[in-house]
Parts: sequence; C-alpha cells; structure tokens
Amino acid sequence: MKIEGGVYYVLWLIFVMVRIQIQDSVQGRLLSIDNNKNKPDPKNAAATARWLVSQNSWGVLNTISIDLGGAPFGNVVSFSDGLPDNGSGIPYFYLTALDPTARNALKDNRASLTISEYPIGTCGKVDPENPTCAKITLTGKLKLVDGNSKEEEFARKALFSKHSEMKDWPEDHNFQFFKLEIEDIFLIDWFGGPKPLTLDQYLHFQMKELAIVL
Amino acid sequence: MKIEGGVYYVLWLIFVMVRIQIQDSVQGRLLSIDNNKNKPDPKNAAATARWLVSQNSWGVLNTISIDLGGAPFGNVVSFSDGLPDNGSGIPYFYLTALDPTARNALKDNRASLTISEYPIGTCGKVDPENPTCAKITLTGKLKLVDGNSKEEEFARKALFSKHSEMKDWPEDHNFQFFKLEIEDIFLIDWFGGPKPLTLDQYLHFQMKELAIVL
Repeated sequence: MKIEGGVYYVLWLIFVMVRIQIQDSVQGRLLSIDNNKNKPDPKNAAATARWLVSQNSWGVLNTISIDLGGAPFGNVVSFSDGLPDNGSGIPYFYLTALDPTARNALKDNRASLTISEYPIGTCGKVDPENPTCAKITLTGKLKLVDGNSKEEEFARKALFSKHSEMKDWPEDHNFQFFKLEIEDIFLIDWFGGPKPLTLDQYLHFQMKELAIVL
Repeated sequence: MKIEGGVYYVLWLIFVMVRIQIQDSVQGRLLSIDNNKNKPDPKNAAATARWLVSQNSWGVLNTISIDLGGAPFGNVVSFSDGLPDNGSGIPYFYLTALDPTARNALKDNRASLTISEYPIGTCGKVDPENPTCAKITLTGKLKLVDGNSKEEEFARKALFSKHSEMKDWPEDHNFQFFKLEIEDIFLIDWFGGPKPLTLDQYLHFQMKELAIVL
C-alpha cells in the first residue's frame, strides 16, 4: 500500500509538472513575441511612426483611379522601408503595371500609404478604430525608382529581405521598384486627435533608439 | 524490480498520453479556427468577396482629401456588413467629423474600402501581395445613413454586434453611421488578374451558402 501510494504521488507530481512546463512554454512564447515588438511610448510620435512602418510588411496604397472616374482607389500591397533592423522610414514597393495602382501612379502620382498597428498584434483587446491602436497615413507622391541606381539596389534589398518570394515573381510581369516620397504624416496613437509630426522629425529619428529584436 | 519496471512503464505511458492530449488540443484549436473561417473556393468570386467582407472587422477607407490638395487619403476604420452570421455585403461605418475621412466624404463622397485576407490568418505562408492571398476594393459613394431610419437601426446592430466598445464611444464626438454605396468591385483571389464580379452577383449571393460557424 505504501508503494502504491508513492506511485500515485509520483504520477500526480509528474502530471502537474508536465502541465506547468507546457503552460510556461506557451506563455513564454506569447510573452517573448510581445517583448520583441517593443511598442514605443505613444508620447514619442516619431518613434511610434517609424516603429509602425518598420514593423509592418503590408499596407493599403491609395491612388487616384484612372478607370473609376478619379475615385480614390486603395490596394493591398507589400512594402519595406529597409532591412529588418534598419528602416529608413521611406516605403518602397514592387509593383507591376498589370495592376491598377502602378498604372494610376504613372498617370497621377498623388498617393498615400495607410498602415495599422492592429495586425502587429500589440493593440490588446481594443477595437481597430480605437485611437490607442495606432495608425498612420503617409501622403505624398508615388514614384518609379530610377533603374540601375543605388536607390534601386537599396529598394531591392529592403523588399527582398522582408518578402523573400518577390525575387521569384514572374519576369514577364515587369515588376518595378516604386517609392513614396512623403509630404505629410497623419498619425493617431492615442486620444486627442492626430499627433503633430513633421517630415523632418520622422525621417531623422534614429532607429537605434528602438531596441527592436526581430 | 518487476514493480519498478511497471512503474516506469506507467510513467512513460502517462507522459506520452499527456503529450498526445496536449498536442491534440493545440492542433484541435488551430484546426477549429481554420475550419470556422471556411475560405470559399477562389473560383467562386461572389462567395470569396462576401466572405472577405463578412470575416473582416476593419479595412482602409479611402477618400479625396480636402486638406491635402485632393490626394487619395486612406484611413484605418472598423466596419460591419451585418450581424456576425448574416452579412449584407454593404459596409457600414461609425465615424466622427473630428476625423478627416468623414469630413472629406461630406464634401466629396467618392470613396473605396480596401480589405485584405491577410489578417484573417488564412493566407498560409504566402506574401500579403501574393494573388492567392485575397484582397478586395469596393469603390463607390460614402454616404451618411438617414437618422432614425430602419437602415440606421440596421447599421447600429451590425456595427455594435461586431465592435462592442462602439456603444461607449464619447457622445460629444458626434459619431454617425455611414455606408458605402458600392459601384465597382475589384477582387484578386488567385493568379490571372482581377476576378470578374458584378455588383448584382455580389449583393445577391446568399450567405447561407457559406457554412460559417462564428
């Protein structure tokens, strides 16, 4: 009886330990994901804006539609502002004129790129429209990057490092590198309306101030 | 020795069973999430479009900017096309004129709503710009819903059922219900360019054809 009692105790102990170990590993994984994302203090508008742009891999790129009577036309696109640990703040795209967005921009380059914090997973339980769930709209001109330039090389590295399948996209689609020359920044990251943020403050923010572990 | 051997065998058995149980419960959860999302066959454009709109809770709403010289201005917004299990296909919004999107629309109602499959989590490992990761842009007119109308009641139920915090948003912000009167549908859900889909096909698709368990 003593042995049996001891066996049941050991079994129970093992069962509890396995459960704790598994709970820990699950919670640890979730915690480490959040920690890696390192959301800046909302009071720091430049840090929040640059973090949003560097952490996201896709957004909605808006142009003036040729086909739809000048309507504002949003399109889901992938983008990159630099290597994963070293964003520039300037979004680059890999677009084909088979798609309306590139065709529109080549005719009228007014454009904006809109990005939400929501898909990063750091908004908690608030609604995507809640102002504490940050969002940014960069408005400016969508321009073709000069072929065979240093900037094209930068755009290629920036995009292909974050979007590995791009290098294999079909050659006959004639994908080309575009960039958004930013003129205005609309940032919401807390209550109280858009955060004042100039283009200079945005572009001159040093990414090393964000200890992002990707 | 026999007893000890038996004990180790039982311990090993319990360990294996606990592992299997935990793996099953994790996989089961993942599987059930995917099953609930029930992505339609990409060949069925109407089903895919209505599924994308009913499954998503947020998108980018694009208007012509008053403040930025007529630039296309995208803004992250929450929306709803109906109760969770009974979408209408028509997106409704809860907007305040403190925000540029509502102000723009009240001046020039040309607008589009852009939605990606990516945040639903059913795109697998492909890039957000890969055409097999579906995306839709509904273009039309963004209009205020008549106050105290049946449609306003529908919009309220549609939005508040999917966005529970909206009912508590500050009264002094004067949030109002808007809808997008759709005129054109741009849908990418596979290779080969946009899927032909008329407004009639889209609006008349019966949601009960999608066995969505939410």
